Amino acid sequence: MALAPSGGPVVAEVEMNAGADLGATTVRATVVQASTVFYDTPATLDKAEKLIAEAAGYGSQLVLFPEVFVGGYPHGSTFGLTIGSRSAKGKEDFRKYHAAAIDVPGPEVSRLAALAGKYKVFLVMGVVERAGYTLYNTVLSFDSLGKYLGKHRKLMPTALERVFWGFGDGSTIPVYDTPLGKIGSVICWENRMPLLRTAMYAKGVEIYCAPTADVLPSWQASMTHIALEGGCFVLTANQFCRRKDYPPPPEYTFGGLDEEPSPDTAVCVGGSSIISPSGTVLAGPNYEGEALLTADLDLGEIVRAKFDFDVVGHYARPEVLSLNVKTEPRHAVSFTG
Amino acid sequence: MALAPSGGPVVAEVEMNAGADLGATTVRATVVQASTVFYDTPATLDKAEKLIAEAAGYGSQLVLFPEVFVGGYPHGSTFGLTIGSRSAKGKEDFRKYHAAAIDVPGPEVSRLAALAGKYKVFLVMGVVERAGYTLYNTVLSFDSLGKYLGKHRKLMPTALERVFWGFGDGSTIPVYDTPLGKIGSVICWENRMPLLRTAMYAKGVEIYCAPTADVLPSWQASMTHIALEGGCFVLTANQFCRRKDYPPPPEYTFGGLDEEPSPDTAVCVGGSSIISPSGTVLAGPNYEGEALLTADLDLGEIVRAKFDFDVVGHYARPEVLSLNVKTEPRHAVSFTG
Amino acid sequence: MALAPSGGPVVAEVEMNAGADLGATTVRATVVQASTVFYDTPATLDKAEKLIAEAAGYGSQLVLFPEVFVGGYPHGSTFGLTIGSRSAKGKEDFRKYHAAAIDVPGPEVSRLAALAGKYKVFLVMGVVERAGYTLYNTVLSFDSLGKYLGKHRKLMPTALERVFWGFGDGSTIPVYDTPLGKIGSVICWENRMPLLRTAMYAKGVEIYCAPTADVLPSWQASMTHIALEGGCFVLTANQFCRRKDYPPPPEYTFGGLDEEPSPDTAVCVGGSSIISPSGTVLAGPNYEGEALLTADLDLGEIVRAKFDFDVVGHYARPEVLSLNVKTEPRHAVSFTG
Amino acid sequence: MALAPSGGPVVAEVEMNAGADLGATTVRATVVQASTVFYDTPATLDKAEKLIAEAAGYGSQLVLFPEVFVGGYPHGSTFGLTIGSRSAKGKEDFRKYHAAAIDVPGPEVSRLAALAGKYKVFLVMGVVERAGYTLYNTVLSFDSLGKYLGKHRKLMPTALERVFWGFGDGSTIPVYDTPLGKIGSVICWENRMPLLRTAMYAKGVEIYCAPTADVLPSWQASMTHIALEGGCFVLTANQFCRRKDYPPPPEYTFGGLDEEPSPDTAVCVGGSSIISPSGTVLAGPNYEGEALLTADLDLGEIVRAKFDFDVVGHYARPEVLSLNVKTEPRHAVSFTG
Amino acid sequence: MALAPSGGPVVAEVEMNAGADLGATTVRATVVQASTVFYDTPATLDKAEKLIAEAAGYGSQLVLFPEVFVGGYPHGSTFGLTIGSRSAKGKEDFRKYHAAAIDVPGPEVSRLAALAGKYKVFLVMGVVERAGYTLYNTVLSFDSLGKYLGKHRKLMPTALERVFWGFGDGSTIPVYDTPLGKIGSVICWENRMPLLRTAMYAKGVEIYCAPTADVLPSWQASMTHIALEGGCFVLTANQFCRRKDYPPPPEYTFGGLDEEPSPDTAVCVGGSSIISPSGTVLAGPNYEGEALLTADLDLGEIVRAKFDFDVVGHYARPEVLSLNVKTEPRHAVSFTG
Amino acid sequence: MALAPSGGPVVAEVEMNAGADLGATTVRATVVQASTVFYDTPATLDKAEKLIAEAAGYGSQLVLFPEVFVGGYPHGSTFGLTIGSRSAKGKEDFRKYHAAAIDVPGPEVSRLAALAGKYKVFLVMGVVERAGYTLYNTVLSFDSLGKYLGKHRKLMPTALERVFWGFGDGSTIPVYDTPLGKIGSVICWENRMPLLRTAMYAKGVEIYCAPTADVLPSWQASMTHIALEGGCFVLTANQFCRRKDYPPPPEYTFGGLDEEPSPDTAVCVGGSSIISPSGTVLAGPNYEGEALLTADLDLGEIVRAKFDFDVVGHYARPEVLSLNVKTEPRHAVSFTG
Repeated sequence: MALAPSGGPVVAEVEMNAGADLGATTVRATVVQASTVFYDTPATLDKAEKLIAEAAGYGSQLVLFPEVFVGGYPHGSTFGLTIGSRSAKGKEDFRKYHAAAIDVPGPEVSRLAALAGKYKVFLVMGVVERAGYTLYNTVLSFDSLGKYLGKHRKLMPTALERVFWGFGDGSTIPVYDTPLGKIGSVICWENRMPLLRTAMYAKGVEIYCAPTADVLPSWQASMTHIALEGGCFVLTANQFCRRKDYPPPPEYTFGGLDEEPSPDTAVCVGGSSIISPSGTVLAGPNYEGEALLTADLDLGEIVRAKFDFDVVGHYARPEVLSLNVKTEPRHAVSFTG
Repeated sequence: MALAPSGGPVVAEVEMNAGADLGATTVRATVVQASTVFYDTPATLDKAEKLIAEAAGYGSQLVLFPEVFVGGYPHGSTFGLTIGSRSAKGKEDFRKYHAAAIDVPGPEVSRLAALAGKYKVFLVMGVVERAGYTLYNTVLSFDSLGKYLGKHRKLMPTALERVFWGFGDGSTIPVYDTPLGKIGSVICWENRMPLLRTAMYAKGVEIYCAPTADVLPSWQASMTHIALEGGCFVLTANQFCRRKDYPPPPEYTFGGLDEEPSPDTAVCVGGSSIISPSGTVLAGPNYEGEALLTADLDLGEIVRAKFDFDVVGHYARPEVLSLNVKTEPRHAVSFTG
Repeated sequence: MALAPSGGPVVAEVEMNAGADLGATTVRATVVQASTVFYDTPATLDKAEKLIAEAAGYGSQLVLFPEVFVGGYPHGSTFGLTIGSRSAKGKEDFRKYHAAAIDVPGPEVSRLAALAGKYKVFLVMGVVERAGYTLYNTVLSFDSLGKYLGKHRKLMPTALERVFWGFGDGSTIPVYDTPLGKIGSVICWENRMPLLRTAMYAKGVEIYCAPTADVLPSWQASMTHIALEGGCFVLTANQFCRRKDYPPPPEYTFGGLDEEPSPDTAVCVGGSSIISPSGTVLAGPNYEGEALLTADLDLGEIVRAKFDFDVVGHYARPEVLSLNVKTEPRHAVSFTG
Repeated sequence: MALAPSGGPVVAEVEMNAGADLGATTVRATVVQASTVFYDTPATLDKAEKLIAEAAGYGSQLVLFPEVFVGGYPHGSTFGLTIGSRSAKGKEDFRKYHAAAIDVPGPEVSRLAALAGKYKVFLVMGVVERAGYTLYNTVLSFDSLGKYLGKHRKLMPTALERVFWGFGDGSTIPVYDTPLGKIGSVICWENRMPLLRTAMYAKGVEIYCAPTADVLPSWQASMTHIALEGGCFVLTANQFCRRKDYPPPPEYTFGGLDEEPSPDTAVCVGGSSIISPSGTVLAGPNYEGEALLTADLDLGEIVRAKFDFDVVGHYARPEVLSLNVKTEPRHAVSFTG
Repeated sequence: MALAPSGGPVVAEVEMNAGADLGATTVRATVVQASTVFYDTPATLDKAEKLIAEAAGYGSQLVLFPEVFVGGYPHGSTFGLTIGSRSAKGKEDFRKYHAAAIDVPGPEVSRLAALAGKYKVFLVMGVVERAGYTLYNTVLSFDSLGKYLGKHRKLMPTALERVFWGFGDGSTIPVYDTPLGKIGSVICWENRMPLLRTAMYAKGVEIYCAPTADVLPSWQASMTHIALEGGCFVLTANQFCRRKDYPPPPEYTFGGLDEEPSPDTAVCVGGSSIISPSGTVLAGPNYEGEALLTADLDLGEIVRAKFDFDVVGHYARPEVLSLNVKTEPRHAVSFTG
Repeated sequence: MALAPSGGPVVAEVEMNAGADLGATTVRATVVQASTVFYDTPATLDKAEKLIAEAAGYGSQLVLFPEVFVGGYPHGSTFGLTIGSRSAKGKEDFRKYHAAAIDVPGPEVSRLAALAGKYKVFLVMGVVERAGYTLYNTVLSFDSLGKYLGKHRKLMPTALERVFWGFGDGSTIPVYDTPLGKIGSVICWENRMPLLRTAMYAKGVEIYCAPTADVLPSWQASMTHIALEGGCFVLTANQFCRRKDYPPPPEYTFGGLDEEPSPDTAVCVGGSSIISPSGTVLAGPNYEGEALLTADLDLGEIVRAKFDFDVVGHYARPEVLSLNVKTEPRHAVSFTG
């Protein structure tokens, strides 16, 4: 919490396990609310290490970073597009954004794996992934032994995102069975996709990570709903960015505003939070600054919640409603032989 | 609102269509928050007529009643069950409850149809449906010409409900295409079923009715989430019941309490509300008494919201995630020939 | 009970509705345990009238006769058959048996209808039906207005029955919706056919009539099971026949015995009884002589029982187990044009 | 029978094969009537081993345990539910009950397989199966070589069971063709489902195992009826539990009673028995204490019984009555590709 | 050409069939270069009729309109989007755009069919299709008898188009076998998709229609290449729009420009043309105004060209390179039963 | 450019990176437009060295030679074939042509490798490859360290080429990942094969080499289209040959002409050029003589172009259109053991 004097308490009081010796696992989890160093991936990784170290210092076992923390979320940009036209400046903006993205695997992935191992945390990190000349909004997961586990690519970018990110497929919607529970990630408005969430529930997700860029109050309603619907802990991490976290104009301009924001203006106000399976808010939402939000997750809450409602178990009606998830990778071209 | 001096304004101020001439349809809708006259279906229907008349007097075109308004929600009952045993009193409780239920079609359905026609409202009414000796938690819909349109049976009862209600199937999940928009109903914790909601979205629901018995604050989060997820108006109606709305003890007892509640104790505190496709609360939630909650629904809001997110349209990924809904009726026995 | 000094009380004490004013319908029902006047159908019909009159005198609203009361059950006969050979005597036995059977419709049916109307009882009567040269084991039903309602032909004769009765089909398995409840009949070992019983349950049978010729104690177990399984009242009627109810030898001989039984020997010992939906025996079983067994059926018991178990309702799993009943008549030859 | 001095003889006298040399297989089978060690699955398994060893000592080849012997039947509990509300204590009760359940496959299944192999018995064991956060009422079967064969999940839980057990499907209704005959299991009130029984008959069940929690006398009628209807041996096993077999209050409370039962009060009185295809009771019912009930099953009885009545063979009428069983597993979500 | 005094000659001189009597079919085809009446679909259809009538007056048998002629191409709009934010004005812009779109089938489709029949032309018309709340960039085809044949939905919108148009699938890539030859349509930058073009070649396209919004000179290179690659006639139609064809500001604003364009400024400069299978330009490109471009297509050119190069025939290497086209419709939700 | 006084500037002005320090890689590339010394392979290689040295002198890092520069393109020959007959002269012509071809590997390949190393250029060289008695139209690649990397055999010869060249397979369609970018080659009308090009795109080709013998203006349209479609630099090299570059008649005759061309007649007029990913022509086309055409390739252009259109990335629809490339070598006979 050192980064955020206005933040909430480092460790939320979790009422439901007070005074009880339930024999259930408790996991200390930290959600990072911080800004990318835009166009500077090495500096962003340095900042990530500092934040991971701080969380580990509090005893956190799981650290979740915001959507595209590595690579950055281009708030206020339009990449020079209006319908039917595009600008040279916008194309060059994209070239720089492409340059700040990372290959998976690649040296930045190796560094992140090493950080997870060094600080002994399960690390969930949002990145901009570069696959040739198409970029993806991707989340990487690493275990506390420093092993890179895999990635989730956002299935469907939202609105303008569709002009700079490609679309994921069914081959990268993992849930990892870890000593801390079953952990998976769903990105931003993917969280509004009921079929994708159901796929995650079917994979048994217990700690549901929702890195996002949505700052509206209604986002908290969705997070609460998902906790209830899925009977899982929901952790949502958003960036808190000020204008000065982006290059100054004219290199980087904020569109859709009457005037250029001042350097200290918040251009993304966070809203990170942690919610229990019964819909109790354990930490956040914090809208005031960069912060680490930490809570102890009593995993026994999951079974207590699923007693009432198990969305893919006793409360499902598979003979009426059945979802099929196609998990094969989709390639325009495959080479065989 | 005559019934509820403590209720909110009769017509909510809907900010998004103030001063605009959008050419879009506006629908005035009323959500009824009132109690069943328990074990007395004729009196309940009389009360329904009074409430419909009042809503129609405000110009409402659509009136939604709570879950099982006709037949009643047996709050506090256990029907005499503990695991492995049952009581004669509980069986007799069920016989009375069965007697208060209605056949569909049947005389009570005809009366409701006549009320819809008389007051020229689209009527959505929760009832306990009797089909032989199994009861269903059912919602009936009637158009403003007085025609009975059809029913939705709750697919999956919740917790103890499973001992007194049967399970619906895929043949009764209708959405009606009406002059007021496409109207459908999902009951109580069915609203937590992402696959069922997706089926409703695929049918194009625009005015999503959610009769319920859930009084928790987290219910409002779910309603807001559904409005966002589905890009639809969400109307939720719950009963406001006091102890005295049920027969006095010993005929009817409230279990799970330290002592018998006083006659005026609220045993179901409502929480009815109306929410727009962008997540704006247009009316309610009201937790204070019986009330009519009314709002003007600017249907243009739907398309504005779906521009960002169309859950079964441009934001879906059907080649990865596809839901199948089996719509045939399920009968243990069919007779053919 | 005049016929049966050793019989049970005319009206069983039904403990579960003692002292209660439940508002439920109560039906007084009588099961007739008596013998055919063999080879003498007019005399059998006279006897039937006498028994109906007596039951009506007790206030009975429903009177059930045994399997093939009209026409008779040829106990002890072999119709001259051993495997691979037949006798002229046996053929002549069949000619007489065929002559004692009745056409449906026909004069005997008209007389039975008139009796039902005269005594204002719902009448269920077992008969041997003659259709050309094939006989059927049939049950006829008549309402208390004297109207013939229809027939059920035994679907599958048992053992040696297959040599003198034909097989019914799915066109004659009726359940009648009457002011006394829903009434249907299933004959003798048809009651061991779980699919046929399920068809009856699906038709909503509430008063399940089981005319029979089975005298074993295990028959009572089946009757109790059916009451529980179907959540219905079960009435079973068997003949009580002595040797002298059949023509004396050599016209009619009892096969398979070491010696000709004495005239007073019981060759069919009855076992008629009435059982409630919860498995309580309301009357019988009577193994001592001809008798009328009567009980008051509290129809409220049905809903109390189905609360726990509704075999074609809330306890069914139609998406896993589904029965199809083909109801069209089966004719070897059909004429169309 | 060492456990049950008040029990019946260890080996019932089976009259129908006395003095006969029929050439048919005889199987010695034991039904266990004993209580779970509640909330203590390792101790329950230890107790199971002791009982298996004892039965094997008598020469038993088949050992049947009661419904949910592993995991336990929560007699008297309500899991804190009244209609419309639930308690924190009830949720925690469920968490403990969930913790005592077993994964299939899993270490407890391996141990049970080893026991079957060690004592050379065909073992049929009722368990609470844990599948994620939904529990199932399941029966596991193991052959005498120590191989786990498969499971049956109860298709439809009864009454309050529906709040803590999920629903099986058509993929787990096995009948195993073994050297001892064809063996299958149907749980508690599933035995009242005529379509499910018919499915078992169609699979050729010869030794029909009916683990149960029903203690009423009418249960015996159903068991007799099934033996007759199916032409099979019926073995029914119930627990005999005293209050002290459950945790003391307040950890575990018995609802629906006027006062807390004394430690020695029987809260489940057994009624285990063994019945032949002709409806003869070979052992039990025992209502007096924990016991092993053993009988020698003359498999020749089956064909003798089916001569009269073969429910899916010569006595069926498939052109009129046909049952369809859907055997595919039902999953809310399937992953393909 | 009445509309376009600055246009080219009405009928291009097609040198390759001058003086020859080749016995091949010649088709007179017209490409329409004209602007939508933005936000006014009835007026746009009136304009379409006038243009079709004029083309028919020249003897044209085939008339191709530009991409989204009905509904309009929102040049210069951004729908209020910058990355991470959106405006109320932009949402309302979308609502109007959605209102100007057409249902397929629907009244506008019926009118277009009637026009094709009235003027006896094969009509290919670009429209904005409305499917619930998602829009598609669609081309409709009608035969000269006035029959609606089907549609092609653009598979992949370009750049900002992805925020207001959904994605087509493999079920709508038709080629129609007509008396004029095999006719198909590929929209705008879909023409850059080599796999989609190959699918069209494999369906045998002979008259390849390419409605577009691309005005760059390089577009002509692509059209020439496709004619060579596919061995087919290529017809490309673009709108010629002036600022005044759109609503004036502030209702409609052009983004990405230094200043608001004058009413007569061309905001889309056309470039429509017709090219032969050998790469010869038969008409256009016209960059000067609204125009009808007409050419006579000598279908014998196709076989002359394919002698050298048949992309899916003799010049293919299917054992090395094989394309699979999945043609089933993709629905997020399917209803069956 | 010394060889070609009429050629364009040695280094094209590339407008899009003027004055910018983009941090992107720039590659200087030279396309050789020159003629084979027909039937004289050693002399051809000497000429190649001279041209490489000159390009290296300009600072070129990549040198592309025309199709079959080594071995020669037999313009004007028919190898004595008319349909149904052949001549002895034609057979001898083939023998000589076969003699001028080179084995791969072989001494000429070694010499070419040495040249690449000596002049520190990435070398792409068209050759006639001799494999036993079948010849292939092949392109060889060498890195600037003098290493032979591999070959591409033309998959499908065009028209008469099919009588003297064999067909390649999927094992030789390489793209090399080099410090200069990803480099691959596609020969002549292979460039019209959309599936082969797509395979190259999927391999990530950034510098797309198109050695050719096509001199038509429409070839430039195809090159421009490929640059746009593939988002890559396209380099096309053709020979500029005069009659005198071939043996004089009667040893070598030009068929299909009215008269023997004069020695200085151009029999292949070149057309070599270099095009950027946005379709801008950076050098050429030169139709006037032998020449070296050189341009600086700003690789940043690739990402700027792919922002709009990534043919195998964000603009692909792999779930609809998927290409399979079989990469195994195809041998008429394989030996295994």
